[in-house]
Amino acid sequence: MPPKLFEAVPNFSEGRDAEKVARIADSVRAIPGVRVLDLHSDPDHNRSVLTFVGEGEPLLEASVALARACVEEIDLSDQKGVHPRMGSLDVLPFVPLGPPLSDTTLEEAVRLAKMAGEAISALGLPVYLYGAAASTSYRADLAEIRRGGYDGLVARCEEALWKPDYGPEEIPPRSGAVAVGARLFLVAFNAYLDTNDVEVARAIAGEIRERDGGLPGLKALGLEVGGRAQVSMNLTDLERTPLPTALEAVRRSAENRGARVESTELVGMVPLSAVFEASRYYLALPELGPEHVLEAACWGGWRDPSET
Amino acid sequence: MPPKLFEAVPNFSEGRDAEKVARIADSVRAIPGVRVLDLHSDPDHNRSVLTFVGEGEPLLEASVALARACVEEIDLSDQKGVHPRMGSLDVLPFVPLGPPLSDTTLEEAVRLAKMAGEAISALGLPVYLYGAAASTSYRADLAEIRRGGYDGLVARCEEALWKPDYGPEEIPPRSGAVAVGARLFLVAFNAYLDTNDVEVARAIAGEIRERDGGLPGLKALGLEVGGRAQVSMNLTDLERTPLPTALEAVRRSAENRGARVESTELVGMVPLSAVFEASRYYLALPELGPEHVLEAACWGGWRDPSET
Repeated sequence: MPPKLFEAVPNFSEGRDAEKVARIADSVRAIPGVRVLDLHSDPDHNRSVLTFVGEGEPLLEASVALARACVEEIDLSDQKGVHPRMGSLDVLPFVPLGPPLSDTTLEEAVRLAKMAGEAISALGLPVYLYGAAASTSYRADLAEIRRGGYDGLVARCEEALWKPDYGPEEIPPRSGAVAVGARLFLVAFNAYLDTNDVEVARAIAGEIRERDGGLPGLKALGLEVGGRAQVSMNLTDLERTPLPTALEAVRRSAENRGARVESTELVGMVPLSAVFEASRYYLALPELGPEHVLEAACWGGWRDPSET
Repeated sequence: MPPKLFEAVPNFSEGRDAEKVARIADSVRAIPGVRVLDLHSDPDHNRSVLTFVGEGEPLLEASVALARACVEEIDLSDQKGVHPRMGSLDVLPFVPLGPPLSDTTLEEAVRLAKMAGEAISALGLPVYLYGAAASTSYRADLAEIRRGGYDGLVARCEEALWKPDYGPEEIPPRSGAVAVGARLFLVAFNAYLDTNDVEVARAIAGEIRERDGGLPGLKALGLEVGGRAQVSMNLTDLERTPLPTALEAVRRSAENRGARVESTELVGMVPLSAVFEASRYYLALPELGPEHVLEAACWGGWRDPSET
């Protein structure tokens, strides 16, 4: 029987001080049974994304260690960056992992998110459940919880509708609040344009995102990052909108505005199936699958990190 | 230390009788320590390609078992197909596997090919060494050994220049001869056109292949397969000519002739790096690597097949 694995993809509000980022990541690495897969820091966003995998119990322990490290290292009242945020540990989603590595369900991720939220709140942090773990439908969308960032949340949490699910009812200025949730695999995929005109990126984002009638499961923002216009995307339903569909929509929309996609980047990880889908699409190779790949066929299943 | 792994990719001259093909593949599966990764039968070519992986000793044992099964199941004097062939077990190449799975060298694959060739010849089969294992430079190219198929070889092996490296000097009509060699990873990649005019495929092949001034390490033939024109390619140097480079050359050349690539297929396996290269190229995602892929980061190394 495959192990019950989840991915955790916390976002925390430090992307410039490499030593602080390292200490925060090390707090997770120290937990036996947890495998840290990726750490991506963005100085412009002043934000880092950590990706780690493990079974429920080690992940619970790692979540508490991570929240404690973020509270110690990050003073939110002193933090500036392009990205909206409401907490030092800003967001902590749990994602069920499917075949061939595991066979965990979204319901199991919801149970884990609630346990983690409760455990983190004992550190004095207000916790908002979101996504599939939300206690009520208007909190399912992370953007609704985080609207207006820290200040917006402080103003709103006076109302009964916006009390935290766990923890203190007042939002501490230093740590802020944290959103803990459960969701399906999400791919963060950014396209850089050959222009510095952020309005072009915003117009493209408005054309392609689901909210404004675009592609299913696609969220998009136009940003200026490092002096270039960027279409920042989240793909939340890879079945209906895989990477090539999103990118080709950006390319068409950019072309109509006299711009071009120069390069793209992934923030965090993708499932192997997303890479295969891209090769299938562009190589006109409909039958390509992991069974065609030497490494995938030879490698074993989940390798307990304590064995390495 | 990683294990010393090789891939073996034998081609044998039966692609229509599913029971014979299965018995031949089972002769390899029966050897402990060998993992069969792929079996691809082509009824038009009347030919199958088996892909298996293991360390040297099990592969040696599997090679002899495979040769014996091919001799028992296939009567070459009674065999017809589109593809040129000279033996029942027609070709047996050994390929060194690199990181992250192993760290085997081409020299080690040459030693294994010579041992396998000698062992197979004891069954009464004439063996020609080719590729990096060739005893002399004019035999390095498989096409030179196989020129004219079985009949061509029978005529030529009268000359001292074309004596086999191992085994009897007369080519038995039932089994034919076998080419045993060592080479780097080869990808067999076919593009189907939206025409049945094989001349279009031949013209494209002539334009893109290395021999006629085209892309480095690319071999290509125009064939008619299942009523459609096919550009059949072997990519022997993925560093210099990766899949997208080859396919885009076919697409451009086809367009100039009023044709289009409808779909492509892989025969056998590719290294994971080839799939990543395709995604990097088409998604304009230069930094994509296995470290971005959840499964690759979680999976263990070589898993001994006897453990499964």
